[in-house]
Amino acid sequence: MRGAVLYGPRDIRFEERDTPRIAQPTDAIITLSATCVCGSDLWPYRGIQAVPEPTPMGHEYCGIVEDVGGAVTKIKPGQFVIGSFFASDNACPNCDAGYQSSCQHREFVGGAQAPVLRVPLADGTLVATADVPTKELIPSLLAVSDVMGTGWFAADAANVKSGCTVAVVGDGAVGLLAVLSAKRMGAERIIAMSRHESRQKLAREFGATDIVTERGEAGVARIMELTGGVGADSVLECVGTQESMMQAIHATRPGGYVSYVGVPHGVELKGEELFFAHVHLHGGPAPVRRFLPKLIDLVCNGKINPGKVFDLTLPLDQVAEGYRAMDERRAIKALLRP
Amino acid sequence: MRGAVLYGPRDIRFEERDTPRIAQPTDAIITLSATCVCGSDLWPYRGIQAVPEPTPMGHEYCGIVEDVGGAVTKIKPGQFVIGSFFASDNACPNCDAGYQSSCQHREFVGGAQAPVLRVPLADGTLVATADVPTKELIPSLLAVSDVMGTGWFAADAANVKSGCTVAVVGDGAVGLLAVLSAKRMGAERIIAMSRHESRQKLAREFGATDIVTERGEAGVARIMELTGGVGADSVLECVGTQESMMQAIHATRPGGYVSYVGVPHGVELKGEELFFAHVHLHGGPAPVRRFLPKLIDLVCNGKINPGKVFDLTLPLDQVAEGYRAMDERRAIKALLRP
Repeated sequence: MRGAVLYGPRDIRFEERDTPRIAQPTDAIITLSATCVCGSDLWPYRGIQAVPEPTPMGHEYCGIVEDVGGAVTKIKPGQFVIGSFFASDNACPNCDAGYQSSCQHREFVGGAQAPVLRVPLADGTLVATADVPTKELIPSLLAVSDVMGTGWFAADAANVKSGCTVAVVGDGAVGLLAVLSAKRMGAERIIAMSRHESRQKLAREFGATDIVTERGEAGVARIMELTGGVGADSVLECVGTQESMMQAIHATRPGGYVSYVGVPHGVELKGEELFFAHVHLHGGPAPVRRFLPKLIDLVCNGKINPGKVFDLTLPLDQVAEGYRAMDERRAIKALLRP
Repeated sequence: MRGAVLYGPRDIRFEERDTPRIAQPTDAIITLSATCVCGSDLWPYRGIQAVPEPTPMGHEYCGIVEDVGGAVTKIKPGQFVIGSFFASDNACPNCDAGYQSSCQHREFVGGAQAPVLRVPLADGTLVATADVPTKELIPSLLAVSDVMGTGWFAADAANVKSGCTVAVVGDGAVGLLAVLSAKRMGAERIIAMSRHESRQKLAREFGATDIVTERGEAGVARIMELTGGVGADSVLECVGTQESMMQAIHATRPGGYVSYVGVPHGVELKGEELFFAHVHLHGGPAPVRRFLPKLIDLVCNGKINPGKVFDLTLPLDQVAEGYRAMDERRAIKALLRP
């Protein structure tokens, strides 16, 4: 089969790779209905994160189970399944606590920008839909695999509650779906920080009540103005830079909640500053597995349509164009059809 | 009157100061029944925090109201009152949210190591007891003013719940009262980190079920061993150094809670490390005012006896010996009688 491999900064190739097979008795092999490019793929693509060797890319996936290992009992060939970027046994104490992305036996699922994928710990990782979904649902079900699950975690980790005021830092696909998540959780006011017209439009469609175009301390000042000088109850940091993190912390009211869901790059927090900011801080790799049953249900029942973040669809062999379009911010998120 | 003034590292003097008077219509003047030396007083005493000019010391207090300003309506002369180190109006949005130590009009209350104290924003800051308490209750009521309120906040901010496993980093008075607080909140297992026998003894009396004498990564390894390799549900950081903060973060299970209640000195947190630790982090200056009514009630009804942390009682004019004894760790906490 052919799949996407990153060789170095901006050097993504679509090339021959071994077709995955069952390697462990807990594995499943799935043929992908769709895959996509993640905002986090751009860190190594841009050279901000080193790529020590050619690396098969992609970690968002949904599709049909082809084969399962001898120890797999719940997942069956023929099922349509969705999983997360960390495989988890869903049985250890960390999984029981709802932190499957810190599973004691977690394995990163890589190489999903391809037609076929091996998923470890299949019974703990994959969630099957009741029926094989229609084509129309595929983009939203694919979104649930990571970007929607991560946006949902951003809202959950920032304690978004009915009636509260939320600010979202970052207008990438995760930020936009964090807006959607905050809306579903009953936030009364949702301030999206964005200076891109098409993203502002989608943010409003997803539930944003206010748009702030200023960044950094000017953005903080604007949020203070909008919240009567107090700050937002919950601020969802969906970027991962020092500037975005400080913007989030400073825009939160004392006693309020900051979540951060993208791997921070070069972020350092001064203890004393954090102390006097008086905020709650929580983040990490989104435990998407915790939310999969609920989010699949919301998608299948037409309650949410997170697939709208895919504003570019390409055949898989044009994966390099998907990276370019996202890198240049011509596209919010690129869906790839194997 | 004479009170304690810090001139520089280890130079604390008991000297003539102006007796405080009503300066604002919202002030109260109280004569102190007792005062004490705080662990946080040791930072400037040891020269770790600069003292730009001679500074009247002390911020823990309880006593009898002598006089009130014209705008004070709830607090009356003759009442026995307790307040916190930050005066607060208890009416702004931050106070309403329970974060009175981030009150929009907060003022630091300093100079309490003296016979008489001016307390700003008296109606919002002070809580009166039903009756003037007996002498026996004074140490515990004084403790409520800061060290007990701060230990309680440590447990509250780390989400201590019935049945959970708690670890406390730091065996100073705040750490010991954090143990007491965790016990009151129903923690099943409370691991106190201490290598001092007298403090271990008090920790056990307050409810500690396990003592860990190792520090740093060895202390973390011991907590992992005690928790089946998972980590504690809640870790209460009651020191404020880089080592203690990292010890707390590393000893917490993914999805668990870390609180920190002492002003961090030189602490820097790497975003990426915090991200993969997957913990909740919350701290700041303890909003003691939120807890005062409850804690006063617990003391007056004999449910808790936090005054036990005072293992040295001195007349106020020997305040310098109080600092020395705490600096040299000969005393946990020194109570001063004006």
